[in-house]
Amino acid sequence: MQQIAIGIDLGGTQVRAALVDEHGGILARAAEPTDALAGPDRVLAQICGLTDGLFAASNPASVVGVGVSAPGPLDTVAGVASNIPTLSGFVDFPLKAELQKRFPFPVDLENDAIAAAIGEWQFGAGKGLDNLVYVTVSTGIGGGVVSDGRVVRGRKGMAAHVGHMSVVPNGELCPCGNRGCFEAYGSGTAFARRAQMRAMESSGTTIGSDGGAIDSRGVFAAARDGDRLANQLIDEEAEILGRGFTSLIHIFSPDIIVMGGGLSHEFDRLQPGIQAYITQWAMPAFKDVKVVLAALDQNSGLVGAAALAFLTGKGVRT
Amino acid sequence: MQQIAIGIDLGGTQVRAALVDEHGGILARAAEPTDALAGPDRVLAQICGLTDGLFAASNPASVVGVGVSAPGPLDTVAGVASNIPTLSGFVDFPLKAELQKRFPFPVDLENDAIAAAIGEWQFGAGKGLDNLVYVTVSTGIGGGVVSDGRVVRGRKGMAAHVGHMSVVPNGELCPCGNRGCFEAYGSGTAFARRAQMRAMESSGTTIGSDGGAIDSRGVFAAARDGDRLANQLIDEEAEILGRGFTSLIHIFSPDIIVMGGGLSHEFDRLQPGIQAYITQWAMPAFKDVKVVLAALDQNSGLVGAAALAFLTGKGVRT
Repeated sequence: MQQIAIGIDLGGTQVRAALVDEHGGILARAAEPTDALAGPDRVLAQICGLTDGLFAASNPASVVGVGVSAPGPLDTVAGVASNIPTLSGFVDFPLKAELQKRFPFPVDLENDAIAAAIGEWQFGAGKGLDNLVYVTVSTGIGGGVVSDGRVVRGRKGMAAHVGHMSVVPNGELCPCGNRGCFEAYGSGTAFARRAQMRAMESSGTTIGSDGGAIDSRGVFAAARDGDRLANQLIDEEAEILGRGFTSLIHIFSPDIIVMGGGLSHEFDRLQPGIQAYITQWAMPAFKDVKVVLAALDQNSGLVGAAALAFLTGKGVRT
Repeated sequence: MQQIAIGIDLGGTQVRAALVDEHGGILARAAEPTDALAGPDRVLAQICGLTDGLFAASNPASVVGVGVSAPGPLDTVAGVASNIPTLSGFVDFPLKAELQKRFPFPVDLENDAIAAAIGEWQFGAGKGLDNLVYVTVSTGIGGGVVSDGRVVRGRKGMAAHVGHMSVVPNGELCPCGNRGCFEAYGSGTAFARRAQMRAMESSGTTIGSDGGAIDSRGVFAAARDGDRLANQLIDEEAEILGRGFTSLIHIFSPDIIVMGGGLSHEFDRLQPGIQAYITQWAMPAFKDVKVVLAALDQNSGLVGAAALAFLTGKGVRT
């Protein structure tokens, strides 16, 4: 009999649910905008509504469990959401216990970037490997790590906040309140901000010339059209990411770095610069570590949450 | 019957051996200067000579195994020393197999900073905890990590080269060849170099006023005598360490940071500044993580190597 797991990806914008098979295949899926201001009861009802809908449509025979990916900071050891900035009312909220009340299957809860790392490890770019660092480069920078075939969780399950390693002393202000974090330099937001500033200072660039807001996508489009500043900005971004990834390579000794998130949609343009940095500057034993594109794209977390439910169902202590 | 393990700490300056009991107590010890230029055969003979001497003196009843701590880079998965800079001839040398030929007990091999982390975890400042980051701040900066009750080893067992995370883009030259590493700013060597430069630029300091070489110890002594520059240099060093440790707290989510190495002999003077940085700048969920002094001092690696042998003997996959 085919076994399936339910994956839930609870985000500040969308809540998504999927029935996932043992090979990471999505059998059925549903999504709706998160009612982010309505409080936990309503959001939990959304999750149940989505899964009920999937069940009614496909009536799966054997469900091993439910995996839920949620934005941090999430104490996954206690199962408590400390304070999710994008979701009202999730303050010291016993998310795991409340979910468990609503499902007749075992519930697993995971920080979103760690869930994505599990997805890439079990079913994506890191399949079959024992050591990987997943980095999502998007509005912010998040991460998840598998080392020696185990998920690195740490105290409260809060490891791998890789966006908040310091890369410049007293540097740019980071959303976390500190200055100089990797996220404050390498994220898509930081990249777009840099583009905005530099386009204003510069003549002869097409970036921002239509008067509209400058976003990452526009810079990459301009670069493809040969814009010099755009290409320079992207090369700098690749160097920033390459330097940060090299730090993570020295810190975790992964087999590969898996890059996901919004900026990874421009992976082909960024990869050579990132890889060149690693090859040149990593210590000899680490120079051959490759950066690869996430295989599951925006489904890393959704499928990863289901993958976690499968692992728990098999009694694998991840 | 009392079980013991043999701990070996192979360093570029000294090779040390100890018989260690199950509580981390050193029952007998011996050491001699490493014949660092003589090649692996001679160094292995030194190790055997030291342990033979310990055995002759104490005739231990039940030996569970031998743990060997050695300087990296060491591929502990393959058991091979890739290229130990401080020991001639240890190039692609099958250190574990060669050691195993010489001992009738199981041999474990570990990178020195990871061995020290294991020592602090099993018998030192991190006893009973599941998550710790050990950082040795000395000539260089090295590290070892225990996460979720397991040693983080990574590909080739080379994880936790925490001294080579980048902290300043294109910053000071690091012995690794890159620029701007944590080691190039935070190590004892970097601290002494900074003291040297600043003492030359500065009047009214007693640092270096006797014309001798400036070392860390001298700066701390001057600070205790009220020297203003010395105290300023130490406060800056505490900030550099605090910033680096905060990055590691975000990356690993440890219960504690354990500081060892030469500079840890001045822990009492450095700790308030380091802790203040963490409390001020770590993200809310991490502000309460404490930095503590290594309990085993220069024996962390020696006792840690023996601790590893005990764990292996018990069938614990670390």
